[in-house]
Amino acid sequence: MSTAAPHATGQDHLWSVDEHLEDILATVRPLEPIELNLLDAQGCVLVDDITVPVSLPPFDNSSMDGYAVRVADVAGASEEFPAVLDVIGDVAAGQAGLLQVGPGQAARIMTGAPLPPGAEAVVPVEWTDGGLGEGPVAGMRARSLAPEAADGQVRVYRPCAARAHVRAKGSDVQAGDRALDAGTILGPPQIALLAAIGRGTVRVRPRPRVVVMSTGSELVQPDEELAGGQIYDSNSFALTAAARDAGAIAYRVGAVADDAETLRTAIEDQLVRADLMVTTGGVSVGAYDVVKEALAHVADEDEPGSGVEFRKLAMQPGKPQGFGSIGPDHTPLLALPGNPVSSYVSFELFVRPAIRTLMGLTDVHRPTTRATLTADKPLTSPKGRRQFLRGRYADGTVTPVGGAGSHLVAALARADALIVVPEDAESVAPGTDVEVVLLG
Amino acid sequence: MSTAAPHATGQDHLWSVDEHLEDILATVRPLEPIELNLLDAQGCVLVDDITVPVSLPPFDNSSMDGYAVRVADVAGASEEFPAVLDVIGDVAAGQAGLLQVGPGQAARIMTGAPLPPGAEAVVPVEWTDGGLGEGPVAGMRARSLAPEAADGQVRVYRPCAARAHVRAKGSDVQAGDRALDAGTILGPPQIALLAAIGRGTVRVRPRPRVVVMSTGSELVQPDEELAGGQIYDSNSFALTAAARDAGAIAYRVGAVADDAETLRTAIEDQLVRADLMVTTGGVSVGAYDVVKEALAHVADEDEPGSGVEFRKLAMQPGKPQGFGSIGPDHTPLLALPGNPVSSYVSFELFVRPAIRTLMGLTDVHRPTTRATLTADKPLTSPKGRRQFLRGRYADGTVTPVGGAGSHLVAALARADALIVVPEDAESVAPGTDVEVVLLG
Repeated sequence: MSTAAPHATGQDHLWSVDEHLEDILATVRPLEPIELNLLDAQGCVLVDDITVPVSLPPFDNSSMDGYAVRVADVAGASEEFPAVLDVIGDVAAGQAGLLQVGPGQAARIMTGAPLPPGAEAVVPVEWTDGGLGEGPVAGMRARSLAPEAADGQVRVYRPCAARAHVRAKGSDVQAGDRALDAGTILGPPQIALLAAIGRGTVRVRPRPRVVVMSTGSELVQPDEELAGGQIYDSNSFALTAAARDAGAIAYRVGAVADDAETLRTAIEDQLVRADLMVTTGGVSVGAYDVVKEALAHVADEDEPGSGVEFRKLAMQPGKPQGFGSIGPDHTPLLALPGNPVSSYVSFELFVRPAIRTLMGLTDVHRPTTRATLTADKPLTSPKGRRQFLRGRYADGTVTPVGGAGSHLVAALARADALIVVPEDAESVAPGTDVEVVLLG
Repeated sequence: MSTAAPHATGQDHLWSVDEHLEDILATVRPLEPIELNLLDAQGCVLVDDITVPVSLPPFDNSSMDGYAVRVADVAGASEEFPAVLDVIGDVAAGQAGLLQVGPGQAARIMTGAPLPPGAEAVVPVEWTDGGLGEGPVAGMRARSLAPEAADGQVRVYRPCAARAHVRAKGSDVQAGDRALDAGTILGPPQIALLAAIGRGTVRVRPRPRVVVMSTGSELVQPDEELAGGQIYDSNSFALTAAARDAGAIAYRVGAVADDAETLRTAIEDQLVRADLMVTTGGVSVGAYDVVKEALAHVADEDEPGSGVEFRKLAMQPGKPQGFGSIGPDHTPLLALPGNPVSSYVSFELFVRPAIRTLMGLTDVHRPTTRATLTADKPLTSPKGRRQFLRGRYADGTVTPVGGAGSHLVAALARADALIVVPEDAESVAPGTDVEVVLLG
């Protein structure tokens, strides 16, 4: 993994949102595949094409509860002139090879049971007297209650064609067919198919393990007492939830104090369980911005290609950002700003695509759409910066909630979309067609 | 919980899809709320209105890294004629009450740090010389590298208005405001707000625990050898995945043999961890349909209101269905047919809404839309039954995949929608506008 930036770099370069994202996506690589149990692979991306090893169904079987018969024996049967057949026994699902149906004979057969040799079709039980001699029945009596019904005679009231109510071997898939293509995301129906062809495990890209760490000496954990100058840590909770939402296995590390050595140790301790590190806070231009202090020079001591670069982005909120890799495995690290709205917006724009890239997904971004801006007054935006305002989207319109302030968490909690104000716009009038990121 | 059916009942009544669903939704009740840690409540529904206990921010604080000043001291400041102020020390985030800014003084202040008494505004560090005496700077040097910068003098090159770069106490939310309404689903932004107001736990309806049990003596677990007449168990995998997808905590119990007593014991053993039981197979009219046999009469021995009713639905696939409750807690149970496609479609139509009702969600159904049927030939459908064919939806059109057979798992794995053919239609021509259930 390399963090060599493809663009002009350094403290002075103002990165565009697209340049920063491009650098992240050019650097982060899908995780190495591992073999997982089927249910552990839910939501993961298949790495190999999967070929069907054995045809489905593996044998001709009945699609109904009824009687396996020879077609000639029921030709012309009617309620008035039923065909009367000798019942030679039951074929239940899971049984095979026990019975052979000869002329004038029928085997009572259950849905899914193999069609016995000699039989050519299945007559549904509702077309028979079920062996009771009292006209058409609605179903069979339970074997445990009426064992005698597996013998005796059955009256069949309707003829049937060859192969009627028989599911042919291989009619679902044939051995050698492609079951699923590499790249398929495994949802319930794909898991159904893999199980059906006998696959108990499957090679996929695993869910990335994401460690979320908030930093700041002012942060207190919820349910504790606030002293003067303190606030509650919300970023570590919000981004852990957001990382899970993106598909990751997320670990929360709350509120590391603003001390570079403490922070560096904390990050190094977490690397063992991290495929991706996310920090919040400490990336701006202040004298206590210890994430920057702790990580800006890690490349010096690490292997080539490692290092975290701190940047200014032409973006609001979320101007200061850090990105790079750290530790012996070059674990990618995104250092997000500490204001709650800044960190959340940065997560959606940069971390979510990184997580989904690690999973091997190709569709890594939130969906976007166009909407008509509904507002009392024009939106204002700083020139040269792409602004992401919080909004509510409905039926082709979007309405801003709260203001531009990056501390407005309550408004964020009412939003379901981001309104994108491009770099060259300083004002957007109500009624304008705007780009909207749907937060889903 | 009562299973008293609001409609004509009994073996002979053919239930419509809507009647069966209505009965389920009238019977299943949201789970009792419990207090969960914030991150354990992700995706759950809030039970109480949440009121803000303390204003956010809890104190006036700086939105920038810079200097806290008195407005009069920087009035008229310019690069040519900077205001020169005595720096009395640092205010970092998390500190409070240490400094008082008097006339001619400034405190170096970090983003999020409380505005010290006496100060009226914050000047961003970029508008100053950062104490270095060499013109405007891009940022502060780290405290650990340059501790002397917290003292000495600072040159300020621009004036600023009162309250500039100050986030007022309560400007996000005020104590006593409604933070979130009962019924809110807790996603990352809502979790952010709860943490920000100090809530470490929250009362929600928990995720339901769903036990998925497949039945059938023909079923073999994936990765084992198939003998004659056997197939692999796929339902328990598919429906466990689907239950998780719907929001449940799902437990898979694979392949109980077709013996009523064994099955009954297996179900009773699982009740301790089940808020909802789902079985597949054994509900039709065959002599080995042991789910029906084991559960059809449980009400006799249980408390009043308990019991499972087996029904025929005017539906394809998925005609035979069981629904009711079982055990001392009247745990709801849905007994689905055993064909893989039947069980999956039944899950989507009936179990998913039940799970989401247990969670306290109001939007319990898959989204539906209208689409134009794209097909080579008309679709045929049995009169009087609502048919759900598998299809692929794209851009307002839907194309069937595979046929109507309820054993066609491979086609199911390529589908992303169900095409609904109404009860009164026996044929649907290409180009017809049809209802589509989006499987998402």
